[in-house]
Amino acid sequence: MIGSGVEHEARAEEVGRLLAERGCTVVTGGRGEVMAAAARGAKSAGGTTIGILPGSSHAEANEWIDYVVVTGVGPARNLAVAASGDAVIAVGGAWGTLSEISFAKMLGRPVVILEPGQEVVGVERAATPEDAVELVLSRAGGGA
Amino acid sequence: MIGSGVEHEARAEEVGRLLAERGCTVVTGGRGEVMAAAARGAKSAGGTTIGILPGSSHAEANEWIDYVVVTGVGPARNLAVAASGDAVIAVGGAWGTLSEISFAKMLGRPVVILEPGQEVVGVERAATPEDAVELVLSRAGGGA
Amino acid sequence: MIGSGVEHEARAEEVGRLLAERGCTVVTGGRGEVMAAAARGAKSAGGTTIGILPGSSHAEANEWIDYVVVTGVGPARNLAVAASGDAVIAVGGAWGTLSEISFAKMLGRPVVILEPGQEVVGVERAATPEDAVELVLSRAGGGA
Amino acid sequence: MIGSGVEHEARAEEVGRLLAERGCTVVTGGRGEVMAAAARGAKSAGGTTIGILPGSSHAEANEWIDYVVVTGVGPARNLAVAASGDAVIAVGGAWGTLSEISFAKMLGRPVVILEPGQEVVGVERAATPEDAVELVLSRAGGGA
Repeated sequence: MIGSGVEHEARAEEVGRLLAERGCTVVTGGRGEVMAAAARGAKSAGGTTIGILPGSSHAEANEWIDYVVVTGVGPARNLAVAASGDAVIAVGGAWGTLSEISFAKMLGRPVVILEPGQEVVGVERAATPEDAVELVLSRAGGGA
Repeated sequence: MIGSGVEHEARAEEVGRLLAERGCTVVTGGRGEVMAAAARGAKSAGGTTIGILPGSSHAEANEWIDYVVVTGVGPARNLAVAASGDAVIAVGGAWGTLSEISFAKMLGRPVVILEPGQEVVGVERAATPEDAVELVLSRAGGGA
Repeated sequence: MIGSGVEHEARAEEVGRLLAERGCTVVTGGRGEVMAAAARGAKSAGGTTIGILPGSSHAEANEWIDYVVVTGVGPARNLAVAASGDAVIAVGGAWGTLSEISFAKMLGRPVVILEPGQEVVGVERAATPEDAVELVLSRAGGGA
Repeated sequence: MIGSGVEHEARAEEVGRLLAERGCTVVTGGRGEVMAAAARGAKSAGGTTIGILPGSSHAEANEWIDYVVVTGVGPARNLAVAASGDAVIAVGGAWGTLSEISFAKMLGRPVVILEPGQEVVGVERAATPEDAVELVLSRAGGGA
């Protein structure tokens, strides 16, 4: 789950919850806003969360992360976030999110955009958290 | 200069030549197609070229690169390409190029798209190599 | 747990088992040899394992990895491996392992070497898997 | 040229000067202390210098760098520094330098240590800047 923007937190939390209910591990960038909301949603449904941080300290992680990965590679951790999922759902987001969408597509990971930061030709859209989760799971072959 | 696509090589070469004529060092991803074309154009005008490679071998560089930087970080070298210029011109390009545009914008580098891989809201467009070079130099404060 | 060398697999497996028995999550580079042995040991004791891969495919991971992190950054993933643990145990290893020891020390992570690839001034040594685990846990303040 | 430690600046400057006199481009991490000294030495002999920075701003570079590469990947830029030279001379240095020596050896780059941060088995030593430059050039096949 990638993205940013405080206005999208409710939908990100819903995506996290739905993914966890479907048995998916939720991988995010591990910090605040929608990343925290998605992890919080996953934990509310008893799911498992991984946070992949850009810096060199575990302390950057939000409190809903079960397993913290500290990459130390700055914004290049966006590549790791995009690559580590079997599929990617984007909720909102600015330039960092667009870099993650780009990497995910480059690596052949299915990507679905909910609440677009901007339209990206070649990336599917979903209208609701439910649709986003269904669509991305169908593209990932059932496991994400 | 970032981008990809063999159909864009003529324009990439022109961009490289124009940048060199304006005294700019041309930084690219160092490999083939438009990266090679831009470097070739820069060298035709007596310019200097830097190629920032993803792999771990100097041999990946095209023959028009003066200074080869071997990053070893795979697609994360796109961050280095985007960050190392004072400004960025994109010619064509697929997902890798979009990741570079994203990183350049995230870091506040001026970006101009010539021959878009796709429209990106918030990134300026230029219609010709001349326009792209003029526009990006004006955004970079005269030096790129 | 970092390191390499097929001759060290038995001790790596023992380290993985002991860490899991102490409640630690075992983080490795996710691939073969001692990385696989440590993860296998952890799973034999009911532990949890994370594998941080250099490439861009989940398929590189060994079968004992619970959570696969795909970094895409090549040998720079050694930084993520070193940084993600609360403490580091090195079992054997060549240059890649030495890079991980270096990064772990640079970031202030406690490091203990069991079966050194080479002596490193400023890094503690342990004679047995038991000693390595005790020592590293004491340095990490009880949690690793 | 890699390393750190203010007490080694005179020797680093001499290494930079000698490399430039031999026609080599001097690649460093681009910041202060021995990195600046080596670049200053190279410029005093009319050489060319490249600085490969960890952060995301050109402003981190010392004033003797001709071509600034901004990687954005934090300490993972040590991999790029190690990989970009045809050969590596280490002057002093702490853990970051040891990570660079490790990566250089892992990638098969010739490495010579002058003023060791610590002894590294399998890495050649030199007693003087002259010896270091001669030795590393002989290992690199004449060009570095």
